[in-house]
Amino acid sequence: MTAVAGIDVGGTKCLGVLFENGKILKSVLRPTPHADQLVVTLAEIARELGDYKTLGVGVPGLITPAGVVRESPNLTGAVEFDLRARLQKELGHEIDVENDATSAAHAEWQFGAGRGATDMWMITLGTGIGGGFVSGSKLQRGSHGFAGEIGHMVVESQGIACPCGQRGCWERYASGSGLATIAGGERGEEVIARATAGDKQALEYLDVFGRWVAIGLVNLTNITDPNVIVIGGGLAESAASVMPPIKKWFKQLLYAPDNREHPELRVAQLGKNAGAIGAALLSAGF
Amino acid sequence: MTAVAGIDVGGTKCLGVLFENGKILKSVLRPTPHADQLVVTLAEIARELGDYKTLGVGVPGLITPAGVVRESPNLTGAVEFDLRARLQKELGHEIDVENDATSAAHAEWQFGAGRGATDMWMITLGTGIGGGFVSGSKLQRGSHGFAGEIGHMVVESQGIACPCGQRGCWERYASGSGLATIAGGERGEEVIARATAGDKQALEYLDVFGRWVAIGLVNLTNITDPNVIVIGGGLAESAASVMPPIKKWFKQLLYAPDNREHPELRVAQLGKNAGAIGAALLSAGF
Repeated sequence: MTAVAGIDVGGTKCLGVLFENGKILKSVLRPTPHADQLVVTLAEIARELGDYKTLGVGVPGLITPAGVVRESPNLTGAVEFDLRARLQKELGHEIDVENDATSAAHAEWQFGAGRGATDMWMITLGTGIGGGFVSGSKLQRGSHGFAGEIGHMVVESQGIACPCGQRGCWERYASGSGLATIAGGERGEEVIARATAGDKQALEYLDVFGRWVAIGLVNLTNITDPNVIVIGGGLAESAASVMPPIKKWFKQLLYAPDNREHPELRVAQLGKNAGAIGAALLSAGF
Repeated sequence: MTAVAGIDVGGTKCLGVLFENGKILKSVLRPTPHADQLVVTLAEIARELGDYKTLGVGVPGLITPAGVVRESPNLTGAVEFDLRARLQKELGHEIDVENDATSAAHAEWQFGAGRGATDMWMITLGTGIGGGFVSGSKLQRGSHGFAGEIGHMVVESQGIACPCGQRGCWERYASGSGLATIAGGERGEEVIARATAGDKQALEYLDVFGRWVAIGLVNLTNITDPNVIVIGGGLAESAASVMPPIKKWFKQLLYAPDNREHPELRVAQLGKNAGAIGAALLSAGF
């Protein structure tokens, strides 16, 4: 038995995978329950996945190295929720709990679009923005496990109010919610569909959106100098429409663009499985 | 002979130090010459420092791992300037060339305010803003040696125009130049002197300035989760006036402030010597 198991706790669904030799052997999908039912649901997914060497769980939000969920946008009311200890008790064996974006970054670095990078950012453009990074050929978690909360990087100090309490957070502009705001309330998926069909107004919205995404990517590049940036999350599924304006603006906005190598902007390859695969790998020390 | 030598190439002065067992044995100061005289001047400083095991030079701007100055604000016209090869030829031995802020960060981490940090930012608030960082207990340079160009992190997308060609770069607001802008053209030193004397208007300027500094520090914290942030550069010399508003705003602006440990904000300890000491240490592999 060399397969490793990972479960990604998403906003609406929990996805479990059994992973071995670079391949998914089995997947299990369940609706994300209320926080008080989470441990039971995760244990059911784990048992259904079958035999595994180790198990890791990826959760959005502030996750401590001890596997305590400090605060999570997908688990309302889960403050100081000791997920690792509770799930270990339920399953009777050790498990690992990681931030979901850190997990996804690790998976893309090891088996996806980030292969070969010494310094990398993985960003997930979904309802919000998550991130994880590699510096000096090592996955970085920060001093308390909270690195990569890039969605709350302030890019407009007097900008749009964010539910986090601040103003001008990057994810207010460069996420799916941000695209909807740019388009005056139209859903992001609809804007992308219209743009794909060649609608001029929708293409303009995507251009504005691409500039906002690029501002954050440029900031991350000026800060950690990655050679690869992997773009994932729901919006990356429409890469043909979304990526060209991001790339155009990135070149224009980067500091000293003519005197430096630019990072490669790559589309994520592992899709919705990245978080679960990464959690599985990290649980086994890969 | 176990002493190591470092030279920091500043905007107006080049400072050389001979460093051993945590102490500066000797210093040499010379005006920074035009780029075409730089190699000769640095060689003179090196010879005047006396016997050393290794020599490192810290230079602001984009410095490649091979010691080529791609672009430097302190060396006008120095584009693709092969400083390492030229100085090696002049001196007849190998030398190391590093980014000055990376060098300063390393020195503060090893011998200054950053001791004990696993994840750290050192920021220098001077005419502009420089930075260097430690992640996972390792000094990070990025994939091309260009990490830490944090002064050009965009914090106000339609903000003040920066000489770099972009708008709203952090250093337009949170450096000495930024403080002067906030104060309507008054020099930063004068604002600080008035604030120290209790002048209400000057204290208000410093409060606005502190908010801008904090926005950038919060961004860096959300991105890499340091346990220590070291604040150096000319403005840190007035820490009693400058630090209280920075600390106040930092607590207010941090993402999820009640659910996480905050990094310690510490004032740099090595002053103007940090860059030269760090370059010396890095040249010897410390």
